[in-house]
Amino acid sequence: MMRPRAKQYVVARPLYSEESFTEEHEKVYRHRKTMLDHIKQYFTCDAKRAKNAVLSLLPVIGWLKIYQIKEWLLSDIVSGISTGLVAVLQGLAYCLLASLPPWYGLFSAFFPVIMYFFLGTSRHISVGPFPVLCMMISTVVTRLVPDEGPPANITGFEGLTRDEQRVLVASSVTFLAGIMQLAMGVLQVGFVVMYMSDTLVSGFATAAAIHILVSQLKFVLGLTVQSISGPLAIVYTLEIIFNKITSANICDLVISLVIMVVVFIVKELNDRFKSKLPVPIPIEVIMTVIACGVSYAFDFKTKYGIDVVGHIPKGYERPIAPDLQIFQESAVEAFPIAIVGFAVAFSVAKVYSTKHDYTIDGNQELIAFGVSNIFGASFKSFAASTALSRSAVQESTGGKTQIAGLLSAIIVMIVTVAIGYLLEPLPKSVLGAVVIVNLKGMLMQFRDVPYLWRRDKPDCVVWLCTCFAAIFLGLDLGLAVGLGVELISVVLRTQFPRCSVLANIKGTDIYKDRKDYINIYEPEGVKIFRIPSPIFFANIEFFRNKLVEAAGFNPLRVLRKRNKALRMIRKLLKKGDLQWTSKGLINTSCGPIKESEDESNMEELDLPTDFKDLPTRIDWNAELPANIIVPRVDIHSLILDFAAVSFLDISAVKGLKTALKEFIRVEVEIYIVACDPYILEKLHECSFFDDEIQPSIFYLTLHDAMLQTLVNHPESTEKKSNYEKVITTVTIHHPGGRDRNAPDPETKF
Amino acid sequence: MMRPRAKQYVVARPLYSEESFTEEHEKVYRHRKTMLDHIKQYFTCDAKRAKNAVLSLLPVIGWLKIYQIKEWLLSDIVSGISTGLVAVLQGLAYCLLASLPPWYGLFSAFFPVIMYFFLGTSRHISVGPFPVLCMMISTVVTRLVPDEGPPANITGFEGLTRDEQRVLVASSVTFLAGIMQLAMGVLQVGFVVMYMSDTLVSGFATAAAIHILVSQLKFVLGLTVQSISGPLAIVYTLEIIFNKITSANICDLVISLVIMVVVFIVKELNDRFKSKLPVPIPIEVIMTVIACGVSYAFDFKTKYGIDVVGHIPKGYERPIAPDLQIFQESAVEAFPIAIVGFAVAFSVAKVYSTKHDYTIDGNQELIAFGVSNIFGASFKSFAASTALSRSAVQESTGGKTQIAGLLSAIIVMIVTVAIGYLLEPLPKSVLGAVVIVNLKGMLMQFRDVPYLWRRDKPDCVVWLCTCFAAIFLGLDLGLAVGLGVELISVVLRTQFPRCSVLANIKGTDIYKDRKDYINIYEPEGVKIFRIPSPIFFANIEFFRNKLVEAAGFNPLRVLRKRNKALRMIRKLLKKGDLQWTSKGLINTSCGPIKESEDESNMEELDLPTDFKDLPTRIDWNAELPANIIVPRVDIHSLILDFAAVSFLDISAVKGLKTALKEFIRVEVEIYIVACDPYILEKLHECSFFDDEIQPSIFYLTLHDAMLQTLVNHPESTEKKSNYEKVITTVTIHHPGGRDRNAPDPETKF
Repeated sequence: MMRPRAKQYVVARPLYSEESFTEEHEKVYRHRKTMLDHIKQYFTCDAKRAKNAVLSLLPVIGWLKIYQIKEWLLSDIVSGISTGLVAVLQGLAYCLLASLPPWYGLFSAFFPVIMYFFLGTSRHISVGPFPVLCMMISTVVTRLVPDEGPPANITGFEGLTRDEQRVLVASSVTFLAGIMQLAMGVLQVGFVVMYMSDTLVSGFATAAAIHILVSQLKFVLGLTVQSISGPLAIVYTLEIIFNKITSANICDLVISLVIMVVVFIVKELNDRFKSKLPVPIPIEVIMTVIACGVSYAFDFKTKYGIDVVGHIPKGYERPIAPDLQIFQESAVEAFPIAIVGFAVAFSVAKVYSTKHDYTIDGNQELIAFGVSNIFGASFKSFAASTALSRSAVQESTGGKTQIAGLLSAIIVMIVTVAIGYLLEPLPKSVLGAVVIVNLKGMLMQFRDVPYLWRRDKPDCVVWLCTCFAAIFLGLDLGLAVGLGVELISVVLRTQFPRCSVLANIKGTDIYKDRKDYINIYEPEGVKIFRIPSPIFFANIEFFRNKLVEAAGFNPLRVLRKRNKALRMIRKLLKKGDLQWTSKGLINTSCGPIKESEDESNMEELDLPTDFKDLPTRIDWNAELPANIIVPRVDIHSLILDFAAVSFLDISAVKGLKTALKEFIRVEVEIYIVACDPYILEKLHECSFFDDEIQPSIFYLTLHDAMLQTLVNHPESTEKKSNYEKVITTVTIHHPGGRDRNAPDPETKF
Repeated sequence: MMRPRAKQYVVARPLYSEESFTEEHEKVYRHRKTMLDHIKQYFTCDAKRAKNAVLSLLPVIGWLKIYQIKEWLLSDIVSGISTGLVAVLQGLAYCLLASLPPWYGLFSAFFPVIMYFFLGTSRHISVGPFPVLCMMISTVVTRLVPDEGPPANITGFEGLTRDEQRVLVASSVTFLAGIMQLAMGVLQVGFVVMYMSDTLVSGFATAAAIHILVSQLKFVLGLTVQSISGPLAIVYTLEIIFNKITSANICDLVISLVIMVVVFIVKELNDRFKSKLPVPIPIEVIMTVIACGVSYAFDFKTKYGIDVVGHIPKGYERPIAPDLQIFQESAVEAFPIAIVGFAVAFSVAKVYSTKHDYTIDGNQELIAFGVSNIFGASFKSFAASTALSRSAVQESTGGKTQIAGLLSAIIVMIVTVAIGYLLEPLPKSVLGAVVIVNLKGMLMQFRDVPYLWRRDKPDCVVWLCTCFAAIFLGLDLGLAVGLGVELISVVLRTQFPRCSVLANIKGTDIYKDRKDYINIYEPEGVKIFRIPSPIFFANIEFFRNKLVEAAGFNPLRVLRKRNKALRMIRKLLKKGDLQWTSKGLINTSCGPIKESEDESNMEELDLPTDFKDLPTRIDWNAELPANIIVPRVDIHSLILDFAAVSFLDISAVKGLKTALKEFIRVEVEIYIVACDPYILEKLHECSFFDDEIQPSIFYLTLHDAMLQTLVNHPESTEKKSNYEKVITTVTIHHPGGRDRNAPDPETKF
């Protein structure tokens, strides 16, 4: 019995191989669910499951039931109105990012919110336009409908103005991305979002911020710059801007700078006095209203040639069907839009769900965003996700549920149907300035780089690759490159691990790297090789090389030499130059024996050494007659520590089998220890075992295997008997009762 | 001392945490090489290094020095001539695959071989055209210079015929691929070839075989079918062929079928009587010569309208410079050509190097193929690799070194400069038939699928994805998709591993899945959680969820409840409704106390419970006064088994830290056991440790940690004293000498 009396570790038990352990310890039979069982279970339907399914598909039912009208409603109303004002402003501003007429941004801040209200599981995020997504949509839009030159050859474009064509493209891409999200949600593959690691998202967001910054420069400077898409677009755009810099509109620039400085300072103050302010000062809204008024009063548009938002049509437009030809043209770009839109919204939602202690469901979120986008796209809105800044407003002003989101949508609706015309004199440079100020957080992520470099170099490389690829190749291609680099980084981490040869720490059952400790013990002829990572196609060769290195000889080469020597011995025996005596082989001829190369049967040399027509086995480490020399093999046992091998693939199983066979054929005993039960099972399934490799090579612990080698090769320890007095706590007793605590004094040494 | 007397496992040693172990056991200081050291070492130069560098750059010096003229030269000559004949035939045939005039295939079987002779480390492969590479080149060639319609807008094309344009494209792509290979070789990144796992290569090769088959159909049927490139090209090509099937040339078809049947049968016979035949029957060469003769004698070309090889110009053409514009256009396609060409050659070379026991060097091979391709491309040859069938001829006819390769090149040269005209009447259908028969091996890899499915499902998925993507999207895109799927498969294998809760096997120091064994022992309040895989961005959330599941409660939620309760207690103490007595808190007011929601300081609730203004700590598992209820926490210790955690990335370190803190804050003791020393080092570097998480939580083995928990919480075992009689072999003694074997009987129980 384990008893907490003192800090001693005392164990006496039988030596266990996996086989003897299984024999002695009764196992519980566990039925493994097959794929069929899972499918059956998935499609089993009863009243409870049906109810749960409905509840999980319509989370609104769940939280409306527990809605505390008295305590929550007021908060939700305040939050809804604040968020609504921000949403109007961001809708207009981000729409410029998407290269669409501004009022479509208002649609995007309305339609998707309505659907999300019913289907979303997050109570705090503010659904609507997200600047990075807008940039990605802009890429498609300007590729298919460029500023200059004819649009792409798409039949649906006939009879439409350039702006109408663009809206058609944006809503079709949104529709397609929505379908993809819905499909992923239904197929329950929401876990793909896990591949968007923090590092990847940080690098990607930084690159996106730079793209956004560059795309807003033209508004801030009051320049007309055609949109460019494709790799290196950012370089070309900057080139054009610098070429045109002399014709910048000073008035635009001044307005922008004033707005940026004021908004920046007030935001910093908001941050600093967060705890003291009941509600953060809505400085962007205030500045926009002021700018609107000033622009109207002084007629900026005609006097200073400033580009303003211009006519905003009242009310909503008729729904449209998406264009299938655009689906074909933009399928590759819709996928990253679907992924990024969901990933960002989900990560923001997760933050708030942890803070407010409720659960969100990734797959249901995918369904919610999918349906929201499909629904929105039918009404000409573009891809919705969430903007961190807007969600922060919704949550910090006291929003408790999506009631606040719904109210913000109503505010947006009021602007659309009634008071949109008030925004007409708003200069576009104001919108650009607001967008740029909001980039601060995203751009500050550059500070992650030195931190990552010090902590974890592969992660830093992933960040840099993602960021640079996204900046120079464009957001979608950059995301793909980043994901590729990230996946490779995982593989690389396990591809060249530090293998080590272990040795016993004297007087214990502990084994450590022999290079690390001084007081170690290595019995002669035993090597312990630790494999510190999973084994798979990319590192099996590496391990085989390291194993040969650790063993100190190439078993295949030794085997071939032995088999050649055997061939020679047989030949000499036949000729009578050699004879078997009681002392072994004796050379009866005196002349030198020339070794002739016989390459006719190369394959045979790789087979196990065959002694069957000889009277006895040959001791290869003894001196051989007739000047036949084969390399000495100094080890008799090789112990492989599999504790860290968390999986094996089929290449690894094959490679391991070959490697082990080579050792077994030169009479080295193999022990594999601490193998995961699932891996052992898999080895059985993959017919790893045969006549040469037996399941009996598996042992429970390193020490079990080591003791077994010493049982099999008592000579290994005898030479070192001077150690005996030093190390006496690790003992092997005569067989006897397992529960005997005081070993017979006779068996001590 | 460990002594092999019997199969008992007896250990008595002090209980070790990582800290106490380090204190007691002297460590060797090992200087870790920094990146700077590596760079320094790399650029250190002395005479020996210089000599080795030259030798490794020119392997020919190495093997020419040991060349055994008497024994090897004859074999090399026989092998060279046989290989040369096959190379001529394959050169012509594979050139059709590349959509180029046939004689350029002869160039490709000559120039690269010359360079490889000097630079290559493999002595047995036959360098030259490889069908899959030819297909990949054909994709570029037909994209830039289609059969119908104008070629791509490339200035270098001006004044060239269609065939000349194609040759320019092929040699430019080859040149670029050569540069890429050379660069990879110089940068020593030959290991990338490891990502081409057997499964991936098998799937890819099968798809390539299908592409080749389809591309040869037009020659076999005597049809004129324009080459199509891009995704789904194979479907469109088949559609055209089926539409035109009625106009097939019966004579072509008959010739092809005859050739295919004869070659197939003789090849099977060659295989069956491999051991009895001195040299395999060169049936393809024989059939080609016969076909040539028959075609010439009966004038197939004019009589039956059969498409023949036609005019082969004598001698070599002037070298050309590659076109930079084509580099730009085909960079994306040159990369897979470089990779596939090298990967295939390297894998074939590896087979022979293992068989004949010499070493090949991946990076030197990259350099050799890079230079060969650059050199060859300057003389209008196209990308070279090796064809398995031709290398098999070279090796099986006795080739010992690249002398055989050189001789085969000379045979090819003789054909080019002297007797090429003899091949002019050869029908193209014969070449097509020869190519198709040689696909047998590649197509038979379909048989891998059921094998893989039974053994390893992820590998099977990789095979199928690679194969289908390569068939339908084209070889280069297919390869990229395959690589992506393969990398994801590695990540997926570790993403959802089977976590388990372990329990002690009674009477031993062994811990196994508690669900698997019957005779187990779990002290109360201790949970052992095994993490069976590396932890990184994609699975850290998964582990956190599993850990909470295993613990049975959400620590963050408990902490918040406790902190809320504490806030309430403070308030009540202030009001006087509660009082501290010697018995603890006592409720002095009788009325019910209403818990009011106070959300002003949500963040504070997540901080460690702070008792500093209270006279004593509160026992949360006892009953609290004033009807305050907090969830009970039933565990006091959580042991994490890190044995299989082979790496941690930065997301994992962060996530782990948060998770552990949550547990520590609800007063659960954390133990981490069997942690790799490198991971421990990394945790120190990543500032994992702070006031709450101490390095003292690390223990050497599960049993050490378990014993420590029992020392800290003796009450855990007391309730189960009835077990004591059953399990008596695992004991904890009073402190005492480590080398005492016979424990004091008094300390037994």
